[in-house]
Amino acid sequence: MTVEEMAKAMKMASPIMAASSTETRNNALLAIAKALNEKKEEIIIANNKDLEQAKEDGLRDSVLKRLKFNEEKIDGVIKGINDLVTLGDPLSKVQLKKELDSDLVLTRISCPIGVIGVIFESRPDALVQISTLCIKSGNSVILKGGREAANTNKALFEIIKEAAVSVGIPADSLFLVQAREDIQRLLACHEYVDLLIPRGSNEFVQYIMNNTKIPVMGHADGICHIYADKELDTDMAVKIIIDSKTQYTAVCNATETLLVHKDVAPALLPKLNQAFKEKNVLVKGTEDVKGIIDCEDATEEDFKTEYLDLIISVKLVSSVREAIDHINKYGSHHTDCIITTNDETAYEFEKFVDSAGVYRNCSTRFADGYRYGFGAEVGISTGKLHARGPVGLEGLVTYKYILEGNGNIVDDYVNGKRSFNFKEL
Amino acid sequence: MTVEEMAKAMKMASPIMAASSTETRNNALLAIAKALNEKKEEIIIANNKDLEQAKEDGLRDSVLKRLKFNEEKIDGVIKGINDLVTLGDPLSKVQLKKELDSDLVLTRISCPIGVIGVIFESRPDALVQISTLCIKSGNSVILKGGREAANTNKALFEIIKEAAVSVGIPADSLFLVQAREDIQRLLACHEYVDLLIPRGSNEFVQYIMNNTKIPVMGHADGICHIYADKELDTDMAVKIIIDSKTQYTAVCNATETLLVHKDVAPALLPKLNQAFKEKNVLVKGTEDVKGIIDCEDATEEDFKTEYLDLIISVKLVSSVREAIDHINKYGSHHTDCIITTNDETAYEFEKFVDSAGVYRNCSTRFADGYRYGFGAEVGISTGKLHARGPVGLEGLVTYKYILEGNGNIVDDYVNGKRSFNFKEL
Repeated sequence: MTVEEMAKAMKMASPIMAASSTETRNNALLAIAKALNEKKEEIIIANNKDLEQAKEDGLRDSVLKRLKFNEEKIDGVIKGINDLVTLGDPLSKVQLKKELDSDLVLTRISCPIGVIGVIFESRPDALVQISTLCIKSGNSVILKGGREAANTNKALFEIIKEAAVSVGIPADSLFLVQAREDIQRLLACHEYVDLLIPRGSNEFVQYIMNNTKIPVMGHADGICHIYADKELDTDMAVKIIIDSKTQYTAVCNATETLLVHKDVAPALLPKLNQAFKEKNVLVKGTEDVKGIIDCEDATEEDFKTEYLDLIISVKLVSSVREAIDHINKYGSHHTDCIITTNDETAYEFEKFVDSAGVYRNCSTRFADGYRYGFGAEVGISTGKLHARGPVGLEGLVTYKYILEGNGNIVDDYVNGKRSFNFKEL
Repeated sequence: MTVEEMAKAMKMASPIMAASSTETRNNALLAIAKALNEKKEEIIIANNKDLEQAKEDGLRDSVLKRLKFNEEKIDGVIKGINDLVTLGDPLSKVQLKKELDSDLVLTRISCPIGVIGVIFESRPDALVQISTLCIKSGNSVILKGGREAANTNKALFEIIKEAAVSVGIPADSLFLVQAREDIQRLLACHEYVDLLIPRGSNEFVQYIMNNTKIPVMGHADGICHIYADKELDTDMAVKIIIDSKTQYTAVCNATETLLVHKDVAPALLPKLNQAFKEKNVLVKGTEDVKGIIDCEDATEEDFKTEYLDLIISVKLVSSVREAIDHINKYGSHHTDCIITTNDETAYEFEKFVDSAGVYRNCSTRFADGYRYGFGAEVGISTGKLHARGPVGLEGLVTYKYILEGNGNIVDDYVNGKRSFNFKEL
């Protein structure tokens, strides 16, 4: 079967997956967790093959690190699956119920999106996480993994599918495609695939977004900002800025640009620069920043750059308004923070910054589904439609309207024979 | 200013529009309703110019009918605006509030989407409806009207903008573009425009959807079905089918295909055919339908066709399952109805049909925001993300997460110095 034929077959079968019971879907998750635990050795052997090949191919250390799927990582995904079982069922929730007329009742009920395509680069844990999230939410899923993890993905997929099908999940609801040319074919399946979730580098996600008509949920880049206001506690500011920049640099919620109110700069910057030095952070500043501390030049390009590294760009501003404008212009609408002791200034920042997460006095690194208490995360969306920010299970459901009548026709309402009596039930 | 420069300026100014008060936005609506009422003559004169030009250009009667904007239609849109004022503010609603830790509080709050592009063909009422819905929801709006309504659109837009700005709506939040080449330019503004709402013919909407990276909310076609089950009240069936097909044929929620259970066909079809004849409906049936009533041939192509006319395709099926599969394969996931007296069969249909509206024993023509009691309608969406089915004001809002702390850093939580205590507030 070609990818297109497969996607078409899945689309037709997806209502059966959508109608599976809460119990069947949770049993599938438990069976998967059990099977992954029992077949750890098999997974690790497959992963070692991939790692050897990757080393032979001269792939970078950072790729090898993401590719590695050892016992610790397997235990991590198993724990994630067990947590997922404990979450409530996102399906068949009545979101609205009302009488349009005495014998005409409208109900809005949550249901799965349908067929979801998940495209990921080298991390095998993404395969397990997103496929189990799809099962929990009654969605069918087409998985497209990176070539460098081919053996690991195949082993994981076979274990997951066998376990899920053994407890009653339809076989047509899970597919894995691996050939290089299959990615183009999958991107062309807008008639059958309802949503794509890409997981990988900026360039990778950007490529997906630019080459498909299928809606994409995710984020290409994360240029997060901190604005240090003129009224602040400098110790708190240093602590938050250092955490936001250095706690983990290779992620989308790490801070890339620091905006400092000019009145506080002489007091804050020297202290901060000392802390940056201790953490080996390279500082790139505008001219007025260089007048206060010793640092490299920041150009216009720096403010558009997601470093994902121990580098930070620094600029002085004259007001919270100027900080807001900079963030709305250069940012990626991901997560941006103000450090201030002034409630009114904080309120203005929260109101006017157009980002998925607007923070006050805490690290941008909190932008994460687990830290928000959502239990499981599909990803972080910088789009504004459907789901924004860290996306949990609710990002994988939509709804349908059920209207039940007793022979009601529109003509009667248009001609005044009958009239609506909208009443919430 | 080019369309791109304008869209960029609007994007930067959109947070100011987003932050406008409920009172300002409602006052703007009242001022617009008042101005439209006072300037009826001006509008009608502009509309007459367009009508004369359209007649000269030999445009079809159906276009002239949509283009015409007389006193009755003006009163209609004014009533719509006054109704809109009475609806609650969709903004600044707290959707979620929880403590992540004793000094770290997460709040999810509704906010406008940002900059919305509205592209419409000949109906000037679409300009008024959608621009006032955007104002109510704090969105900035770029309007692109059809060339044939240029004078009417210009008159309406100037009245609306002047009235809105007079009570404090930012001038940068409303723009009208009219040049033919501007549509391509608008479609390319994915960096600045957050959502497109097209209103017009199937081909028009399809064109928009296929030529932009901006998310599009709407529907291209509406191929709605009725399935007449083996257990039904034939009189009720005839009544619902006639209303669904004939009450208004030129709309997306009119029924195009009838599926009849073979056991009920001999009793239902002759009765129904009589009613179709009285309403001048052309029937196209499969071979087995032609064995029962006299009708034209239905081909595979017919089941993929939205007639928008007094034509219906008819097919016999052997089970509710076969009806569901036909609908999921050929339908446009808009609105589909079962006529049955059997609760279990109805439940199966509601569960497995993958459409925005799944109905039982009532006309498909009920698929409409006003009839659902939403007060105002942005349009009907056949997409599954963000909003599905008839879309009210809630389709024009998104949300942002506000996180307020007291110097909280992620490192403390990763290293076990502190831990989350998720608590709903």
